[in-house]
Amino acid sequence: MSDPFWPGDERAGGLFTGPALLAAMVRVEAAWLSALVSAGIAGSGALDDLSGLAGERDVPSVCDGAEGGGNPVIPLVSLLRERLRDRNPDAATWLHRGLTSQDVLDTALMLCVHDVLERLRAELVAQAGALVTLAGTHRGSLMVGRTLTQHAVPITFGLKAATWLTGILDAADDLDTVDFPAQIGGAAGTLAAPTALAERAGLTDPPRRAVELTERTARLLGLRARTPWHTTRAPVTRIGDGLVRCTDAFGHIAGDLLTLARPEIGELSEPAETGRGRSSTMPHKANPVLSVLIHRASLAAPQTAAQLHLAAAEARDERPDGAWHLEWPALRTLARRTVVAAGQTTELVTGLRVHPDRMRATLEAAGPDVLAERRALDALPRSSPGPYPGPDPGSDPSRYLGATDLIIDAVLDRARSRTEAP
Amino acid sequence: MSDPFWPGDERAGGLFTGPALLAAMVRVEAAWLSALVSAGIAGSGALDDLSGLAGERDVPSVCDGAEGGGNPVIPLVSLLRERLRDRNPDAATWLHRGLTSQDVLDTALMLCVHDVLERLRAELVAQAGALVTLAGTHRGSLMVGRTLTQHAVPITFGLKAATWLTGILDAADDLDTVDFPAQIGGAAGTLAAPTALAERAGLTDPPRRAVELTERTARLLGLRARTPWHTTRAPVTRIGDGLVRCTDAFGHIAGDLLTLARPEIGELSEPAETGRGRSSTMPHKANPVLSVLIHRASLAAPQTAAQLHLAAAEARDERPDGAWHLEWPALRTLARRTVVAAGQTTELVTGLRVHPDRMRATLEAAGPDVLAERRALDALPRSSPGPYPGPDPGSDPSRYLGATDLIIDAVLDRARSRTEAP
Amino acid sequence: MSDPFWPGDERAGGLFTGPALLAAMVRVEAAWLSALVSAGIAGSGALDDLSGLAGERDVPSVCDGAEGGGNPVIPLVSLLRERLRDRNPDAATWLHRGLTSQDVLDTALMLCVHDVLERLRAELVAQAGALVTLAGTHRGSLMVGRTLTQHAVPITFGLKAATWLTGILDAADDLDTVDFPAQIGGAAGTLAAPTALAERAGLTDPPRRAVELTERTARLLGLRARTPWHTTRAPVTRIGDGLVRCTDAFGHIAGDLLTLARPEIGELSEPAETGRGRSSTMPHKANPVLSVLIHRASLAAPQTAAQLHLAAAEARDERPDGAWHLEWPALRTLARRTVVAAGQTTELVTGLRVHPDRMRATLEAAGPDVLAERRALDALPRSSPGPYPGPDPGSDPSRYLGATDLIIDAVLDRARSRTEAP
Amino acid sequence: MSDPFWPGDERAGGLFTGPALLAAMVRVEAAWLSALVSAGIAGSGALDDLSGLAGERDVPSVCDGAEGGGNPVIPLVSLLRERLRDRNPDAATWLHRGLTSQDVLDTALMLCVHDVLERLRAELVAQAGALVTLAGTHRGSLMVGRTLTQHAVPITFGLKAATWLTGILDAADDLDTVDFPAQIGGAAGTLAAPTALAERAGLTDPPRRAVELTERTARLLGLRARTPWHTTRAPVTRIGDGLVRCTDAFGHIAGDLLTLARPEIGELSEPAETGRGRSSTMPHKANPVLSVLIHRASLAAPQTAAQLHLAAAEARDERPDGAWHLEWPALRTLARRTVVAAGQTTELVTGLRVHPDRMRATLEAAGPDVLAERRALDALPRSSPGPYPGPDPGSDPSRYLGATDLIIDAVLDRARSRTEAP
Repeated sequence: MSDPFWPGDERAGGLFTGPALLAAMVRVEAAWLSALVSAGIAGSGALDDLSGLAGERDVPSVCDGAEGGGNPVIPLVSLLRERLRDRNPDAATWLHRGLTSQDVLDTALMLCVHDVLERLRAELVAQAGALVTLAGTHRGSLMVGRTLTQHAVPITFGLKAATWLTGILDAADDLDTVDFPAQIGGAAGTLAAPTALAERAGLTDPPRRAVELTERTARLLGLRARTPWHTTRAPVTRIGDGLVRCTDAFGHIAGDLLTLARPEIGELSEPAETGRGRSSTMPHKANPVLSVLIHRASLAAPQTAAQLHLAAAEARDERPDGAWHLEWPALRTLARRTVVAAGQTTELVTGLRVHPDRMRATLEAAGPDVLAERRALDALPRSSPGPYPGPDPGSDPSRYLGATDLIIDAVLDRARSRTEAP
Repeated sequence: MSDPFWPGDERAGGLFTGPALLAAMVRVEAAWLSALVSAGIAGSGALDDLSGLAGERDVPSVCDGAEGGGNPVIPLVSLLRERLRDRNPDAATWLHRGLTSQDVLDTALMLCVHDVLERLRAELVAQAGALVTLAGTHRGSLMVGRTLTQHAVPITFGLKAATWLTGILDAADDLDTVDFPAQIGGAAGTLAAPTALAERAGLTDPPRRAVELTERTARLLGLRARTPWHTTRAPVTRIGDGLVRCTDAFGHIAGDLLTLARPEIGELSEPAETGRGRSSTMPHKANPVLSVLIHRASLAAPQTAAQLHLAAAEARDERPDGAWHLEWPALRTLARRTVVAAGQTTELVTGLRVHPDRMRATLEAAGPDVLAERRALDALPRSSPGPYPGPDPGSDPSRYLGATDLIIDAVLDRARSRTEAP
Repeated sequence: MSDPFWPGDERAGGLFTGPALLAAMVRVEAAWLSALVSAGIAGSGALDDLSGLAGERDVPSVCDGAEGGGNPVIPLVSLLRERLRDRNPDAATWLHRGLTSQDVLDTALMLCVHDVLERLRAELVAQAGALVTLAGTHRGSLMVGRTLTQHAVPITFGLKAATWLTGILDAADDLDTVDFPAQIGGAAGTLAAPTALAERAGLTDPPRRAVELTERTARLLGLRARTPWHTTRAPVTRIGDGLVRCTDAFGHIAGDLLTLARPEIGELSEPAETGRGRSSTMPHKANPVLSVLIHRASLAAPQTAAQLHLAAAEARDERPDGAWHLEWPALRTLARRTVVAAGQTTELVTGLRVHPDRMRATLEAAGPDVLAERRALDALPRSSPGPYPGPDPGSDPSRYLGATDLIIDAVLDRARSRTEAP
Repeated sequence: MSDPFWPGDERAGGLFTGPALLAAMVRVEAAWLSALVSAGIAGSGALDDLSGLAGERDVPSVCDGAEGGGNPVIPLVSLLRERLRDRNPDAATWLHRGLTSQDVLDTALMLCVHDVLERLRAELVAQAGALVTLAGTHRGSLMVGRTLTQHAVPITFGLKAATWLTGILDAADDLDTVDFPAQIGGAAGTLAAPTALAERAGLTDPPRRAVELTERTARLLGLRARTPWHTTRAPVTRIGDGLVRCTDAFGHIAGDLLTLARPEIGELSEPAETGRGRSSTMPHKANPVLSVLIHRASLAAPQTAAQLHLAAAEARDERPDGAWHLEWPALRTLARRTVVAAGQTTELVTGLRVHPDRMRATLEAAGPDVLAERRALDALPRSSPGPYPGPDPGSDPSRYLGATDLIIDAVLDRARSRTEAP
């Protein structure tokens, strides 16, 4: 996988690619087949883990066959049946029995997303670690706070790092709430076919057996069982929202870097990796490309996630007439790009170069303005008759940092409590 | 409030209107003033609940003054100070001391949203109640399941109602996770001004006192305390995502109604309220206007919620240069429209007219096709040698409902467990 | 009209407000009535310009009645008929005959948009004028070109102004292509009712007469005649796209200002109007609020315009089941906000303060880096054996401006040719 | 190229793929090199059409190198220089001299889009042809008009086909307005490097020569010359808007098909190609997959096109810090998907199966309701004293078609005038 239209795409490796989707669909079929055998519906001879039956080489033919039925499951099942015919005719017979295309595809998407979120969680942990360090190290690195682009009052870079960290922790909290249900409902979400299979196999209480088949399959795949969600798409929108909250947090950091790494400000620089940030014609340039690429991702993500909501709202009948199909590429694109941006953000915060001298210089150049608010407070009457216990801050901005350290502490505590959670 | 461009807008009444925002901002200022007095920073004479000082009549002048500083807080504070000068000069002096515009506006937005979510929760409860009844009543109302617009296999209307209910329960679960933090950080999120005020008042450990001021203010307003979130906007995006998940669920229901109320299908009708659904020229028409208007809302919401994510990603410096300002109208519009759509959905599901005879007729007309899947299963070998215990379904579609009842039960259980939760 | 959630909203005055929509709908009904009389379908006694019959005071009741039929036309027609009953019973009889709600609303929207575009064109002319002046005045104001936030090669502020101007001219060109069709098609776009009216009046070739009625009505309203476009919504999406291209151009300018007005850069400042840009607590601040508010608008517009495309794509049957309703508020909001941003942009570019000394200082501080590209070219072989005619640029950045002046000239020519066009 | 997440993707073949982009970038470099030679800046030995130097096999390595500088031009230029070193050292020396990455990439994007639009135009012509035939053939095929999902008044299928055709003609008109400028401006849009090259070559009036270089290069590539548009992105947004207007028109058609092909309505069917529309489990099904997939595309396109506007609004400095990068994948995705949807729409309208008998049956079943409007008109007074010339329509809906035929004629005339245009 490589995409010249999305520099950095290779960071997402094989996650949620065409081959990954195909492999995940095969896993779903294998798990269901196994469940059919376990339940006694299919004979034990039908057991087959389908390994090696289909792979990356088959992606083109599956794609070519996808338009006919509107999804890639139909050609994949044909291909698997064809190849099983010699290797395991019983498996060929029982493959996919009781499932519908949407079962296979939705569940495969969850498997792909699951891998993505595992990777994202690791990135968030790495980012949080780097930011904890930055917040601690730069607790005393005074800089000017900026609001609406103008100088406001003093802050420290430690506080800014803690604010970035807050965004990362919020995103991590949100990812924690995402879960991954398997989708197994049959043609119209009634489990009619699995129930009929159980009935034909002479099992007692066939509907209950059908539900158990779905539970066993979910368990085999490491997913949660849930009543069919062919047209109730919260499982999908929750993932999309969780992903865009990550890019929100990354974009926030990249945006600050893009401002603070301007040469006129120069308070931060991107990591100094050889060759990063080159220009095709200007030998002196060191562009903040990580931040540029993260910024790009954070601009793109909201509208991609919105497509998932649109799809959810347009879910009609027992399977929608286009809204469902809209979800697959949106989720894929959003997921891969979030992984890429996560990796770039980790590299950015881990290798970030901080220039406290420049921060201090800006603050000094800003002069008395950044203490104007403080001086305005002096015009207020004092409610206590006693002597004024605190000295006038004079021109020392470090005397006007308020509760900055307490706020940093609170964020660091929050980070720590996440780490120490079971 | 009434908006000819959004029929039904009046359902949202005074929620999140201009006057509501103004009132909420006044509440924030009053709570902060009270906290200053309690802490001994302002003298007890400064206590003033600000009641009656500003109201709906002042909205135009606050609006006129809003462009100058870029937000409505600045003109409101001027107006309040002016009016307090005679009534309570001490309050005039201490009003807004230690706060920044964003503190007041963000916290006021949370108060407005809080009222919206209370209303939404009540609507969701009402909807869930109606859907529980429908799912139970129509457990045996056979209808055809439709996928990709075509007839698939039999379902019951009870199952469809349970599916709608799943969407509502998902939305309700998501709203449960939303919380409402107060925003108090001062000019750059350091609490520098409140700390200075505490220092000038001779209080010990002024930073700690400043943090306590924020906590007390949050408590007075019924909000949660949180470290400043001027540029970490998850509190806002979580609300936006929660709202759009509501319209997703509403749109799903309305979409089904719009299909099933087509005269050629006729399986459902909107409530028969007099005058609803009239045409300006065609006396016979009864348009499904509730569903049309809900559908509209569900098409609009995703892109509005996406604006909140864009704003979150673009949050730069210690206060953003436009992204923050983008949030206010997006949140207002999304919130009011969700309330309107919620009310319309409640009316729709509460008064829904179900036509089981038409459902049954469609199923019969569909004929043997809807059992084709079932018959295809008969071609499979049986793994058990025993006699086939289940009779052939023949042409009776009720014999091919699979686990429909178990699925309905699971959804009803879920609904019940929400109701019975403390 | 005033909206505390959108500071500056009052700049759009009465354009495209509820009352404006109501007035426009009345105009449409009056024009149609007049056409009916002219054609001899209604007697001359039915002529009534409907003036004074309904106005701002009626907006609330029209709104309250709008949900019942799903649009504001139905209650407005009832109200007009009611009030005409005494004043002109014939007009009461003939009012709205042959029209459908969508005819009235779509045509009224075009009237509202027409006024908006007239205003926008005037703003664009004013902006172009100011930018022509800036480009000319600052043809020699050297500054550093910035790419990916970093210093690149020298430019002049004249070139930057010319680039901004290019955006404005592009937007103006696009608005020139927008046209305003009337919508008159009757219930399902067949003109069945007007044809029947012509037939009953004994007119020859009734269908032709019906088409002529639509043409006359369009002419009376200053709109173009077009075959019914109830479900072919290019007239709407073209307007939306035209509006967002305006905010794109405004946002581009505001974005540059927000960077260049940062205190560390200080090359541009917003107009120094008293009181603009104040902070609620920091007396020294002069926030670039015009640019902040323009930036906000340019972030919001794309997703609003996208709703119009979604509506166009979802136009089903002979009138859509929600997509049409989605257009009204999207168009209204987009139009008003574009007008507001246009006014702010005019104020910004008209009063812009340019600091060539700071520009020059930045360039000098950038030092030899901005000529690095130039020096790299010196490593290339020369194809001509003759003496090198041009002196080495040395350290003088004005020697490395390339075709800057020619490019400025080309843009100024383009501006001039627009002005001189008939 | 094949994408299992977007069934039908293979219809777009090699258009706007990674290899296509690479080939287009090579074309841009070759044209520029040729212009340098023609101008006498590079010696004639430097002429090289770069053919065979880089191709599909190099996409992965170009991608891998793209993140470092943030775009694929930098690694491509390195690769080309490396390979030219042996084959043509002079060309290696002069390659890319005077260009900047954005010049190459923007111009290459235009080349890719150009091919896409050529294909789209052919599809629109084919669609228009098929719809002209349908409108003519079914001029007399009566059907019920539907508004807000309910039966309104009679129409003909010819009118519906003419309405679809209107959408296609609107889209074609819009594509006609798109033009394709080359982008050549150098590092900051000043043509400084080409001017310096001209100067070093001893050419007179070097800035003019630099501009001529850009004009010649544009001509060689079949593109239009334009002043640099690095940050004025109307050329891009116009294309995006033109593409989404195509999918709007396609979605409109597909939406109608999805309704009218429902089994309960059955008035239209998709082309009966073998194997199209199969289900993975239900042997009887014939899903309208073309329409489903077109519908999907029309839901996705608006938000993708909106990203281009966002990028345009966020274009800062002399090259943006992420907004530019956002455009490439958005344009690529939008373009390919529009081509795919166009092909599916052509197949749909060319092979559409129309069932006039079902249309007529629906209309008859609708009964007197569809003439209710007509009867309501009979209550109106007649202005003319003469005998009523037109017979009562009675129960014959064909008597209530109004100006349907005139409207069809007007649309067919419009289609014809496009075809006959030079």
